[in-house]
Amino acid sequence: MTIARPLPQYLVQRYHGWKATSYTENKAWYRRLAEDGQRPRAMVISCCDSRVHVTSIFGADSGEFFIHRNIANLVPAYAPDGEQHGTSAAVEYAVQALKVAHLIVMGHTKCGGVAGCHAMCSGHAPELEEKSSFVGRWMDILRPGYERVKDLPEDQQIGALEREAVLTSLDNLMTFPFVQAAVDSGEMTLHGLVHNISDGSLVQAEGPRGQFIEI
Amino acid sequence: MTIARPLPQYLVQRYHGWKATSYTENKAWYRRLAEDGQRPRAMVISCCDSRVHVTSIFGADSGEFFIHRNIANLVPAYAPDGEQHGTSAAVEYAVQALKVAHLIVMGHTKCGGVAGCHAMCSGHAPELEEKSSFVGRWMDILRPGYERVKDLPEDQQIGALEREAVLTSLDNLMTFPFVQAAVDSGEMTLHGLVHNISDGSLVQAEGPRGQFIEI
Amino acid sequence: MTIARPLPQYLVQRYHGWKATSYTENKAWYRRLAEDGQRPRAMVISCCDSRVHVTSIFGADSGEFFIHRNIANLVPAYAPDGEQHGTSAAVEYAVQALKVAHLIVMGHTKCGGVAGCHAMCSGHAPELEEKSSFVGRWMDILRPGYERVKDLPEDQQIGALEREAVLTSLDNLMTFPFVQAAVDSGEMTLHGLVHNISDGSLVQAEGPRGQFIEI
Amino acid sequence: MTIARPLPQYLVQRYHGWKATSYTENKAWYRRLAEDGQRPRAMVISCCDSRVHVTSIFGADSGEFFIHRNIANLVPAYAPDGEQHGTSAAVEYAVQALKVAHLIVMGHTKCGGVAGCHAMCSGHAPELEEKSSFVGRWMDILRPGYERVKDLPEDQQIGALEREAVLTSLDNLMTFPFVQAAVDSGEMTLHGLVHNISDGSLVQAEGPRGQFIEI
Repeated sequence: MTIARPLPQYLVQRYHGWKATSYTENKAWYRRLAEDGQRPRAMVISCCDSRVHVTSIFGADSGEFFIHRNIANLVPAYAPDGEQHGTSAAVEYAVQALKVAHLIVMGHTKCGGVAGCHAMCSGHAPELEEKSSFVGRWMDILRPGYERVKDLPEDQQIGALEREAVLTSLDNLMTFPFVQAAVDSGEMTLHGLVHNISDGSLVQAEGPRGQFIEI
Repeated sequence: MTIARPLPQYLVQRYHGWKATSYTENKAWYRRLAEDGQRPRAMVISCCDSRVHVTSIFGADSGEFFIHRNIANLVPAYAPDGEQHGTSAAVEYAVQALKVAHLIVMGHTKCGGVAGCHAMCSGHAPELEEKSSFVGRWMDILRPGYERVKDLPEDQQIGALEREAVLTSLDNLMTFPFVQAAVDSGEMTLHGLVHNISDGSLVQAEGPRGQFIEI
Repeated sequence: MTIARPLPQYLVQRYHGWKATSYTENKAWYRRLAEDGQRPRAMVISCCDSRVHVTSIFGADSGEFFIHRNIANLVPAYAPDGEQHGTSAAVEYAVQALKVAHLIVMGHTKCGGVAGCHAMCSGHAPELEEKSSFVGRWMDILRPGYERVKDLPEDQQIGALEREAVLTSLDNLMTFPFVQAAVDSGEMTLHGLVHNISDGSLVQAEGPRGQFIEI
Repeated sequence: MTIARPLPQYLVQRYHGWKATSYTENKAWYRRLAEDGQRPRAMVISCCDSRVHVTSIFGADSGEFFIHRNIANLVPAYAPDGEQHGTSAAVEYAVQALKVAHLIVMGHTKCGGVAGCHAMCSGHAPELEEKSSFVGRWMDILRPGYERVKDLPEDQQIGALEREAVLTSLDNLMTFPFVQAAVDSGEMTLHGLVHNISDGSLVQAEGPRGQFIEI
């Protein structure tokens, strides 16, 4: 017997509603996407947070964005060591197989992962330092970012670390040979955003490292 | 200088449209979610594929689903080895910190990752066997699934392997002590789905292992 | 210009989903209910609380229950003073015009209104004592109930007060001449329930005053 | 002895069915809602009418909507006179304690309360003019609305009065200082709907007062 249980009824009802409306309206397009394969223009790396809706913000429809979501939208550095790297696999597939034209890393305010990283690095969350903490080890990727923000006034550190999460991912992306090659040849551009989930604003990395400009 | 480039203009325009309409309509709720924190009812693990829209299918809005997306919606087995495991970190955060009530793994038809795994395991994609192939190493998670489907008639293998991707993830989820504890105590239920991106249908894992029933 | 704003988009989409599925399936019945008028078998008085779903608990469909929902499922005593009494109007309409066969008062655990009443009556919520507090004045209906539970062990008082809210409403209902007449003639029966929103259990008032038996 | 009688058997059976299925499926979420408290996104004010199912129409599950239901979905004007105002108490609790982001007033066609108001105001229901008529006194809230529709062609008056019930409630809501403050600050939006229970359509108040647009 499988451990899986039937879906809660409210989701079943909503699904049938979707099937009878949105699906039916777009059936031809969905079928074509299924037959011809996807051809997304961009890859987006964003956070798992339930308050982050990248398709909504950008009015994106089926087939537009190849989306990887993980805690704090982090990309680790290139490490072809034969181990399982889910984020690196997603990036490889998007760049090598799908040949996306844009690779967008979108962070957000009030990120629980970033707050956890700040607490860990500043000595306030010893449980995240434990070897067995998956969140802690994952947030290790952002440790160098913490070093860059720890001397700022305290009330600016979290915001700066949210931006560092994006910049760190962009830096790490450039350590992948196939990303660097695609960027150098002009086949793909990188983009770094931070979305403010409270006031809806969006800033993008531009100019000198660490500078973000409102869109 | 950052390597990041300004966002393409079509995305900037759509963003401003969203800000002026959807954001404005829901501003009060977004602000409250930002202030009070998220409290999603469910975690969904689905594929990065651009044709998979879980929030759309289930009429879910901001705050409802904590969503992790990776290649082929795979969850590796529990391995607290101090290495970076992005998927395990997302599961840990959802179960331990957010205490979601439902954990849904949703696979889909025409999955490029699953097709790659099938090609690799059947000897038709030697490049995926290389140590440096992130996609190949990631799809190693599904190798035991291939063993279970390889003796089926050839035209049924891929579909069966798409279902195995979901079942393998469910099995692996149960190797995490905190997932097992939450399931055993009734604090969380697991759900396994496969979405047919062509005809819009949805099947769920039910009864004996490997059986999927249309919703 | 009206102050009203367009409905959030996620509700519009879900509505269209309902229209295309549930409505379409039940169209004939809905039309007949619209033409012939409603003929509900029971009136239910329950709380506004978002965790209380009386139609769901009793598998009730359109046309079955005439439902009044207010804070803490309270019914004030009969007072034909020419003022506006929304609850009394609902009861009058259900009994006199619709001639329901059952009148069910359903309370629930973790009721914010009952907790507020307890805080107010025990001197811990002076703001609820103010004349301008609508919640405070509404919960005055339950003051006599507080007198009956205040000498119980402290950890039993809230639970007892939740049951008193139901019993008080039943007592007050009997002060309405048309309710008393319908009960005396056997045309209508009264029922008192408390629903535990955590473990899903349901108890009903039975036997001596204050006794509730699990269903 | 309490006046309360045991629940009819058909309801007991349906309850046990719910407990064994829906409750079990959603137990984890219900428990969490019970422990952490409700955090509904919206308050809905609708009619007691048994043909009105707001949660069904909007695919809403436990925890989403704080729902007040009274005759003809009416909200009286602000009157902090120390008397019992059940509707005002519900509005106060939703806005002040729960801080809902949306307050939706949903009227419906074939409303018995509205028809009674029309009969009363046009001189055809003297019994409703009596001081002791709770329904009559409650429908007094809608008298100003009758004045605005009484010169329309006769077959349009009832429909117009159903819409006036919604508009009157919206106007009266704005007389509550805490509603006005929440609307002015953007913390809450008001919405006015009329649901056609026969053909399933839904119109919303938009633009100039009295104008309703199909969704």
